Amino acid sequence: MEPLDSLISRLPDGAVSTHPGELATRTRDWWALAMLRERRGDRLTPPQAVVFPTSTDDVAAALTWSTENKVPVVPRGGGSGVCGGAEAIRGGIVLDLSRMSRVLSLDKESLAVEVEAGIRGQKLEEELAPEGLTLGHYPQSLSISSVGGWIAARSAGQASAGYGAIEDLLLGLTAVMANGEVARLRAFPRTAAGPDLRQLFVGAEGTLGVVTEATLSVSPLPDGRRWLAFAPSSFQAGMELVRSLVQQNLPTLVIRLYDEDDAKFAFEPVGHKEGPALVVGLAEGSAGVDVVADAFREEASLQSAKPLSDDYGTHWWDHRFDAVELYRSIMENKLMGDGSIADTMEVAGLWSKLPGLYTAVRDAILKHADSVGCHLSHPYRSGASLYFTFLLSGTNDGAVERMYLACWEEAARACHAAGGTITHHHGVGLLKTPFMEGELGPGGLGLLRSIKGALDPEGVLNPGKLIPGG
Amino acid sequence: MEPLDSLISRLPDGAVSTHPGELATRTRDWWALAMLRERRGDRLTPPQAVVFPTSTDDVAAALTWSTENKVPVVPRGGGSGVCGGAEAIRGGIVLDLSRMSRVLSLDKESLAVEVEAGIRGQKLEEELAPEGLTLGHYPQSLSISSVGGWIAARSAGQASAGYGAIEDLLLGLTAVMANGEVARLRAFPRTAAGPDLRQLFVGAEGTLGVVTEATLSVSPLPDGRRWLAFAPSSFQAGMELVRSLVQQNLPTLVIRLYDEDDAKFAFEPVGHKEGPALVVGLAEGSAGVDVVADAFREEASLQSAKPLSDDYGTHWWDHRFDAVELYRSIMENKLMGDGSIADTMEVAGLWSKLPGLYTAVRDAILKHADSVGCHLSHPYRSGASLYFTFLLSGTNDGAVERMYLACWEEAARACHAAGGTITHHHGVGLLKTPFMEGELGPGGLGLLRSIKGALDPEGVLNPGKLIPGG
Repeated sequence: MEPLDSLISRLPDGAVSTHPGELATRTRDWWALAMLRERRGDRLTPPQAVVFPTSTDDVAAALTWSTENKVPVVPRGGGSGVCGGAEAIRGGIVLDLSRMSRVLSLDKESLAVEVEAGIRGQKLEEELAPEGLTLGHYPQSLSISSVGGWIAARSAGQASAGYGAIEDLLLGLTAVMANGEVARLRAFPRTAAGPDLRQLFVGAEGTLGVVTEATLSVSPLPDGRRWLAFAPSSFQAGMELVRSLVQQNLPTLVIRLYDEDDAKFAFEPVGHKEGPALVVGLAEGSAGVDVVADAFREEASLQSAKPLSDDYGTHWWDHRFDAVELYRSIMENKLMGDGSIADTMEVAGLWSKLPGLYTAVRDAILKHADSVGCHLSHPYRSGASLYFTFLLSGTNDGAVERMYLACWEEAARACHAAGGTITHHHGVGLLKTPFMEGELGPGGLGLLRSIKGALDPEGVLNPGKLIPGG
Repeated sequence: MEPLDSLISRLPDGAVSTHPGELATRTRDWWALAMLRERRGDRLTPPQAVVFPTSTDDVAAALTWSTENKVPVVPRGGGSGVCGGAEAIRGGIVLDLSRMSRVLSLDKESLAVEVEAGIRGQKLEEELAPEGLTLGHYPQSLSISSVGGWIAARSAGQASAGYGAIEDLLLGLTAVMANGEVARLRAFPRTAAGPDLRQLFVGAEGTLGVVTEATLSVSPLPDGRRWLAFAPSSFQAGMELVRSLVQQNLPTLVIRLYDEDDAKFAFEPVGHKEGPALVVGLAEGSAGVDVVADAFREEASLQSAKPLSDDYGTHWWDHRFDAVELYRSIMENKLMGDGSIADTMEVAGLWSKLPGLYTAVRDAILKHADSVGCHLSHPYRSGASLYFTFLLSGTNDGAVERMYLACWEEAARACHAAGGTITHHHGVGLLKTPFMEGELGPGGLGLLRSIKGALDPEGVLNPGKLIPGG
């Protein structure tokens, strides 16, 4: 990668770093396999340079240079993705958006906030809270992930039942194309002026352009949260209960159903003994919250799900970000031995397919894993997500890596055969790119390939992601 | 267009018609200017043939042939668009999907219905009603418009506040590309496997591919509708009231605010005298409906909007499809004289811009129009749509056409200057294509052009729509 000088000359002083420490910390994201490889001492491919843009113009300059010189460019937000989407597998430059982290404007009347894409979730919430507002987008990674990363990986927060997922919150977007051109798509509540080009960048993982700014829809902070919890007789009975609750179209913030294994892990501290558990969170102080809570209790009772303590909900809420630290400990500190690996798989499907999807994916994972737990979250009128957490152990001479890849391949195949999608909100990255033809079908993949070819003719934008062989 | 024989040979018997009557009825849609021209005796460009596919394979055969022979192809649903999107301005074939009108499957557990794209809205509702279900998508054109047309033109129904617009209802989609390849994008509640390619066809008006099948999210039919109505002191005060109601995130089906001129027209039969009127519809029988109705009444009272009779709502509901017939009478039967033209413009914007948008667009229209009325509908947390209905009169020697085009150009410019989008749910068609650069900006339009070039390299798909000069 010779012409780095010509990149440096186009950008403000200090925007380009080749410091080995800067490169090393941008070699991977939180993909379990990359962390395992690093632990084993394998050298992951570092980028040749890190670029820190401070404006959309800087990003445009960097992409123009990348396309001219056919240098791969990997956009990076918080680096908290769990599928390897931020790995610079073909070298090139990493475009680190962390210096683009300002709130540009807040329109309190329209409940719309305009931000630079590098802003972290926690920082955004801290800026909104004094105004009595929240974005309502709370992924587990809130403190370390960014708005741009949420858009790129098609994030959904834990309270998506109340606030919607990232695509529902997106009003306006600025993105830079591979050729350096800037698309400024203004913020509207809705528009019918052609296809919604904003949505093309949601889930594109930086392969079609780089998102630099976004306008998002915010909400008034509720007075607090009111929690309900129930014990369905089985996970299947719990699914049925969640379905009937959701299809009544009652306003909720959070609905989470844990299978026995996951419930044990999640709710032992509040004395959970056995069986699945369902937690429902409502917005305290909203009109009708008492009636809605009664309707939930009544439906649960009708379906023979016994009430559980409200502590389930408050415990979950208070500890909802703990998994990030736990995962970091497991993966970085070898808590479990260096032949062990923990990972998660979040599939989704229609209600009619969900029981079969649960069994098929769980069985496929258990062929390889020591243990697996699952919770249903992000329920919709039409279906829901199933979130599996599993542990594999072997010897770290490559055996556990082979086991891990075999586990994913079988689980993905089982998911597709059972009518599910292999990702609800973690995205694709390196991990799931091999399964994209099964996911989209040949026609759908061909369509994505055509768009990619048109928008990134030199193939410099995050190569190797989304499109197999791409 | 010589090689029609080769098209006929690839399709089932009777699929291709060149009967002049069949061609004549597919020369235009319900765009006011085309109806005016027809009334004046101008010959509109008819297609050279009409193709009636009965399957996705038929559509694939027709598009393959079109691309091979560089023949324009204009997909057509109910032909009820109001912007000229279905005019075959460069000749070629019209692909009339009316023979693809079956319900393919109904998944009652997942509340998902799979249909062929040519099915009319009314027919779909008639098939769903015996199951106690509704799509909840009620455009004024319900009886004459189709699912494929709704997707193509990015439709929003009158109860979008309750059920969402067409993009919110779309779970799965099958589309045929210009080269005949078929993308079968399966139905999921949500997926993060790349950008949502389904959404690329929503609002694309047949310029990127032809939608042949869709899976849509349906809802339980409510027990009925409960109506509330209020008299805000001014349209501006009414906007403020609607904003505060919507931002409380209370469940509603319909919210419509009429300015004085529109209210006079809409509610004279129930004794409306003067001033604006606000109508709110709630789902009868839903949990919390009493509390929600009280919350609405309380907010209205706080903001000094006096209660009006419930008759406002029932009258509106009972007559909500009448405008279709009225419009047909005006335009076809020369009710108003052959130099008159009636049209509608539905802009949208953030709440903070809405009062300015109302004034700017209204003033621009009134420079040319004899009268204009406006209602606010489709409110969101971030903003709403403003729907203007206006009448122009002149002499039909071309003067009224020039006046009409000048009116639209000024109104579109005023809309953009005031921060609005020129279409909330009617789409673009021939009418608004000239304003697309102002709408998307040069970068956004360039992006759309690139995608179009990749997916339709010969430019056969509904040419002249969406992209100026395209």
